[in-house]
Amino acid sequence: MVRVGIINVTGYAGAELARLLAAHPEARLTSVSGRSAAGKALAEVFPHLAGYDLTIGEEIGDVDFAFSALPHAASAEAIVPLVRAGLPVVDISADFRLKDAAEYAEWYGVAHPAPELLAAAVYGLSELNREAIAGAKLVANPGCYPESALLALAPAVKAGIVGPDVIVDSKSGISGAGRTLALTYHFAEANESVSAYSLGGHRHFPEILQELTAMWPRAEAPQPPRPRLTFTPHLIPMTRGILSTCSAPLVEGGVRDGGEARDLYREFYKGEPFVRVVDAPPATKQVSGSNLCLVHPTVDQRTRRLVVVSVIDNLVKGAAGQAIQNMNTMLGLPETAGLIAPAVYP
Amino acid sequence: MVRVGIINVTGYAGAELARLLAAHPEARLTSVSGRSAAGKALAEVFPHLAGYDLTIGEEIGDVDFAFSALPHAASAEAIVPLVRAGLPVVDISADFRLKDAAEYAEWYGVAHPAPELLAAAVYGLSELNREAIAGAKLVANPGCYPESALLALAPAVKAGIVGPDVIVDSKSGISGAGRTLALTYHFAEANESVSAYSLGGHRHFPEILQELTAMWPRAEAPQPPRPRLTFTPHLIPMTRGILSTCSAPLVEGGVRDGGEARDLYREFYKGEPFVRVVDAPPATKQVSGSNLCLVHPTVDQRTRRLVVVSVIDNLVKGAAGQAIQNMNTMLGLPETAGLIAPAVYP
Amino acid sequence: MVRVGIINVTGYAGAELARLLAAHPEARLTSVSGRSAAGKALAEVFPHLAGYDLTIGEEIGDVDFAFSALPHAASAEAIVPLVRAGLPVVDISADFRLKDAAEYAEWYGVAHPAPELLAAAVYGLSELNREAIAGAKLVANPGCYPESALLALAPAVKAGIVGPDVIVDSKSGISGAGRTLALTYHFAEANESVSAYSLGGHRHFPEILQELTAMWPRAEAPQPPRPRLTFTPHLIPMTRGILSTCSAPLVEGGVRDGGEARDLYREFYKGEPFVRVVDAPPATKQVSGSNLCLVHPTVDQRTRRLVVVSVIDNLVKGAAGQAIQNMNTMLGLPETAGLIAPAVYP
Amino acid sequence: MVRVGIINVTGYAGAELARLLAAHPEARLTSVSGRSAAGKALAEVFPHLAGYDLTIGEEIGDVDFAFSALPHAASAEAIVPLVRAGLPVVDISADFRLKDAAEYAEWYGVAHPAPELLAAAVYGLSELNREAIAGAKLVANPGCYPESALLALAPAVKAGIVGPDVIVDSKSGISGAGRTLALTYHFAEANESVSAYSLGGHRHFPEILQELTAMWPRAEAPQPPRPRLTFTPHLIPMTRGILSTCSAPLVEGGVRDGGEARDLYREFYKGEPFVRVVDAPPATKQVSGSNLCLVHPTVDQRTRRLVVVSVIDNLVKGAAGQAIQNMNTMLGLPETAGLIAPAVYP
Repeated sequence: MVRVGIINVTGYAGAELARLLAAHPEARLTSVSGRSAAGKALAEVFPHLAGYDLTIGEEIGDVDFAFSALPHAASAEAIVPLVRAGLPVVDISADFRLKDAAEYAEWYGVAHPAPELLAAAVYGLSELNREAIAGAKLVANPGCYPESALLALAPAVKAGIVGPDVIVDSKSGISGAGRTLALTYHFAEANESVSAYSLGGHRHFPEILQELTAMWPRAEAPQPPRPRLTFTPHLIPMTRGILSTCSAPLVEGGVRDGGEARDLYREFYKGEPFVRVVDAPPATKQVSGSNLCLVHPTVDQRTRRLVVVSVIDNLVKGAAGQAIQNMNTMLGLPETAGLIAPAVYP
Repeated sequence: MVRVGIINVTGYAGAELARLLAAHPEARLTSVSGRSAAGKALAEVFPHLAGYDLTIGEEIGDVDFAFSALPHAASAEAIVPLVRAGLPVVDISADFRLKDAAEYAEWYGVAHPAPELLAAAVYGLSELNREAIAGAKLVANPGCYPESALLALAPAVKAGIVGPDVIVDSKSGISGAGRTLALTYHFAEANESVSAYSLGGHRHFPEILQELTAMWPRAEAPQPPRPRLTFTPHLIPMTRGILSTCSAPLVEGGVRDGGEARDLYREFYKGEPFVRVVDAPPATKQVSGSNLCLVHPTVDQRTRRLVVVSVIDNLVKGAAGQAIQNMNTMLGLPETAGLIAPAVYP
Repeated sequence: MVRVGIINVTGYAGAELARLLAAHPEARLTSVSGRSAAGKALAEVFPHLAGYDLTIGEEIGDVDFAFSALPHAASAEAIVPLVRAGLPVVDISADFRLKDAAEYAEWYGVAHPAPELLAAAVYGLSELNREAIAGAKLVANPGCYPESALLALAPAVKAGIVGPDVIVDSKSGISGAGRTLALTYHFAEANESVSAYSLGGHRHFPEILQELTAMWPRAEAPQPPRPRLTFTPHLIPMTRGILSTCSAPLVEGGVRDGGEARDLYREFYKGEPFVRVVDAPPATKQVSGSNLCLVHPTVDQRTRRLVVVSVIDNLVKGAAGQAIQNMNTMLGLPETAGLIAPAVYP
Repeated sequence: MVRVGIINVTGYAGAELARLLAAHPEARLTSVSGRSAAGKALAEVFPHLAGYDLTIGEEIGDVDFAFSALPHAASAEAIVPLVRAGLPVVDISADFRLKDAAEYAEWYGVAHPAPELLAAAVYGLSELNREAIAGAKLVANPGCYPESALLALAPAVKAGIVGPDVIVDSKSGISGAGRTLALTYHFAEANESVSAYSLGGHRHFPEILQELTAMWPRAEAPQPPRPRLTFTPHLIPMTRGILSTCSAPLVEGGVRDGGEARDLYREFYKGEPFVRVVDAPPATKQVSGSNLCLVHPTVDQRTRRLVVVSVIDNLVKGAAGQAIQNMNTMLGLPETAGLIAPAVYP
């Protein structure tokens, strides 16, 4: 039984890790930390976790594996000693997602606390990076928006069937904003309302672009086209879920229609336990509480754009579920361990 | 491995049974029926159940145990041959809840299709009736409102600390109304709105009253007091959950305060895996997706009324979870099998 | 044109006053204050009020009438000099609702800042107190829960048809908690959840009881029965609206059935522009954004209890709309001025 | 006083017309029709319209102006005799929006019932077409999505600052789907869920494209570029509101940044009572219940795309409010008559 610790269990991602680990057959949550709530029982802070007999500590204790759900910068600082001590870690914060410390500083407004670890850190999107994850000691868990956008776009991008003008329009439930209070997330303000935000640039933008660029086919020409991304996130009056509507122009000789697109996607995701290519537009409710991503590629014949809709639960496949999937891979456990529960519908 | 069938899987209770059974270590869903959707794959009707490779049949096939999630009357008709064939059955419909066929006819508007089975049927509220359930071949799964009200009231009633004027004010999420379309449950009508309904008498009224009466302490006097119940159900703009606010006057010598009430309730529910007596008013979100019932008894000192608030997920402890708990007991499996997942919060 | 000022426009009640006054034919909002936002344009804080060209001041300027939407205690302090200067005022806070300064201190935790004004202040529930309001210089606007409960109960209480054991079970949208941030009102916490709160005693309890007692029929006996109230408020996942389910035992010779109850209520509310007795259970959506109260009295024949359901918009008839209705009466304007817009449905 | 009739008042657009007309100073609703509810009081079908003493008829009676809120095809059929009789009409259905009867037949699946009226019908988007509306007898009220998209794009398109690859990603509340029952709009299915729909082509697509093409600058070249539109509508778990996120590549010499874009938009909409260019991303809640459209243009500097977010209430500016605005213009009334109420926030 793997002994697992969660650093900063008091946010939604941390609590979701604890929820999912309760069903894990080969890992056991044995230690949780969280500064503001240190000393309290986990069940006091989160009544739904009353099944655990754990007290929140200042630090996590002796464990075989750690998740960090700290905010960025604080997370890297907390992880450095663990990684040095040889402990395998999945970081749910953004600290090890961007490969370039300067870009990190630009988007997150602080110097990277541990740039020396960036090279060894692996971007933990299982379906695209499984082998590297298997050999990694430090995995950067993807952001929720990037998870949904990259799973929607990767098959098309890798097959070279789309041109570089990529549009990602994402709709997120409000738990994505975390548990910290703000007027925008006050019920009476957020309910019965939709809004766009971070139009000047969301922190998940460079992450999506970095990964799209990395998978973009290399052209022969001296200056190959690189993806250009417009990413617009929206806040939706629901608790869980992200739907991303992604599109890009099809190149000559790309797929003929939606059917062909779905064939290509099905081939790409063949055998993947957590990605399903579906024939009808999916709804976030179909994945709520589960680690599934549903992907529905179509072709807008009038403009010859590929339009792909993907849905995930932002707290599961977009955070805690993906993190456990990464842990499983890093430890050589069955990748689906602890993650097989169907979505909670309706 | 117990082979399980669900009769009429196409409603919310049926689908929820299938969701929960996916996590059951000793039972396997092997057969599902549903007339309108017969011939379709289960995954087509319910994308969240894509993990099952099952086709919906006109009837269920050869199984070791059956749940019926048919509407009332149709359910009893379908169950009769199964029970005669010796198959253990949990009926999620209302058909075997009321002991009196005349009362059934009055409230449900049809003659009872199988009055001869009423005597043998056991009311399946585990915490109050475990032994009888263990020996039963036919268990009537409680209604969602009765489940929440009876768990809130039983410890006080059985201890004889309350008088007969019982008020139950229940608030239910809209999934309780099922999957059948009606203007009242149309999103634009139900959202941002609360309403009371069935003020003239809800079908769960006689069920609550029957069970309250059965557990009511027998007084010495020739005409013992019997409970008088006012039950008012409400529709709340959320999908899952029931909160019942129950109250009754404390008798002389009843508990002194909320603390004593909670002590009494904790003693009553000691060892129960699915009922927790809590120190703060609970929220339905704390049990969403789980088989838990949280109960919070308090005393209104100004009027000396006991006021108890309980919360359940109407589709789990109020339907499919309770049904699986009953199956476990009937088959001698661990009572918690398949039901240990924490609530999905937030 | 009456020049109107709003003290502390920055909460929901203040903003709602401004919204409603925009449609008032004989009053014009000319001055608004609000400390934290002083110096900002009203349209900056509330984009929906962009029609006003007003800057939020530290204090309101020269006006003919003032509303105070300050928190309790601060409100009384701000009102004292205005009342002394002869300005008619409606106080939306709780400061002048309770007649007894000691009771105020007990429930609100502070000594009353202006007990000398309590005697002259009039409780501003138009339908019950119109004449006194007409002659008042200081009107205490009712709390949102009392407004809904008293309108539901008054006709029965005044007719003497109910006994003293009164139960009020209220369900409120979350805007009732105001604009101040708290985890309970965070979208991801409040959405898809119902909870009871203030079970030990809500501040609106003494207000409801005071008014019920005042209208309770005086019996001949030396110790007449006085009402005993159990009041339980609940938080519902919607923005606006309160539904109160009120019940009390019918006395011998009380109304025979729901039809008779509705006749009695219709007679009581004859000519009232903002109370409608309805034949079917009302929904809060039917009054959203409007100053209406819908009341539906019924009789539970099994227990001979009167059960009355009422709905209001907590921010209109439960706050700003009632306040303007009071202003109209105080100033001799048509009582419906500015308040005739139908509800916004769906 | 203009006597107004509403044909088919029983849907959401019809009911919203009645709500808004209640505040109109120069028009009075005197007649309403609706086949299924004929013979019932308007107040019975819609309790929030109890202020009207009107009975729903099979047909509307003698009026000075008519709105048709019938479904497509039925609407044109009902309108033909009215137009022939000289009655000015606003058609809220889609029947007179597309100029080309063949295109109508393709998208709506029926031959156009009155192609001879198409030439005279005017597309009723006030801000773009005011003069033509003023002289028209038959105005086709825009669809809700086109209203939001065209107001977002028109200033940029007419200024010639964007190239032809236009993306419109729209998010709509569920009232846009009308009052007809369907599983998709069942509360338990729609709540806590987001989905895209009509990916193969929504009926509002040709309408948006027709109007974009009409306003597209004519180039000198023999084959001028024409707009290419990708339009993706989404269903959001809220009742009212549409947010459209629209983007198109900026041409060389287009606006430098968001500030310049907003200057251009402010100039374009100068004096418009119902369109406001705002400096921060707007939320649908800011316009709920009102006839306002908020528009927020920005520039994505990384890709040099213009990104414009607009919000409307789909039932007001997207339907009934725009219809009344058209009536006002057609009859020479003040354009804002009956439409000045601020949004209902929160």
